[in-house]
Amino acid sequence: MSFYDQLKWTNDGLIAAIVQEFGTGRVLMMAWMNRASLETTIATGKTHFWSRSRKKFWMKGEESGHVQTVKDIAFDCDGDTLLIQVEQAGVACHEGFKSCFFRSVDHDGQAFKITEPQLRKPDEIYRKKP
Amino acid sequence: MSFYDQLKWTNDGLIAAIVQEFGTGRVLMMAWMNRASLETTIATGKTHFWSRSRKKFWMKGEESGHVQTVKDIAFDCDGDTLLIQVEQAGVACHEGFKSCFFRSVDHDGQAFKITEPQLRKPDEIYRKKP
Repeated sequence: MSFYDQLKWTNDGLIAAIVQEFGTGRVLMMAWMNRASLETTIATGKTHFWSRSRKKFWMKGEESGHVQTVKDIAFDCDGDTLLIQVEQAGVACHEGFKSCFFRSVDHDGQAFKITEPQLRKPDEIYRKKP
Repeated sequence: MSFYDQLKWTNDGLIAAIVQEFGTGRVLMMAWMNRASLETTIATGKTHFWSRSRKKFWMKGEESGHVQTVKDIAFDCDGDTLLIQVEQAGVACHEGFKSCFFRSVDHDGQAFKITEPQLRKPDEIYRKKP
């Protein structure tokens, strides 16, 4: 039986994909995949997603070079979420942090703080090569 | 500034919440919160969600006793996903596994395997007390 038979896609044909750093367990990002991006992810070993805002198929790192090499793909009991273990080149977040989850709620339940160093400046990540 | 100002809710008023085990880094589950469930999660220190299928506000563990005690709430750069660190009582998955992500895709990219032990039988988790 194919694992695809276990998956449930949204009405828009998407499935949520949590990306976690292999080894450290750091959750890096959450994004959406359609069937084509999941198939390409499996075929190439590099994560591909579907951008809901840009309505565009994209490979993580296609501009920045910060590609994700897949180590494992798990899926949950409901079949509507993937958990993908990767080796992350550079940083996962377009704002230059290792993880997109670089802010945490403070103890008062209202304010927030930045919890990790900004490793790159965003304009360095996306600067066009000459 | 309140962290709530950083969040983006779906048209249905929901935000995705990834739940990760504090300490081990194991991703346990993904579920959805509305504003009321997030506020209650912060106020009580126990995770509360919104069930899209049952259209119901629920506390994780309200039937099974497998509650989640919150250690940290992070949110991503887009403000549309939460990452919640918890201490998990019992198991997170209603199928009796520690994590809902107990199945992984095999090397052939089609078949799948179960990657962790089933710690409880589902009918033991939800058996009504006499």
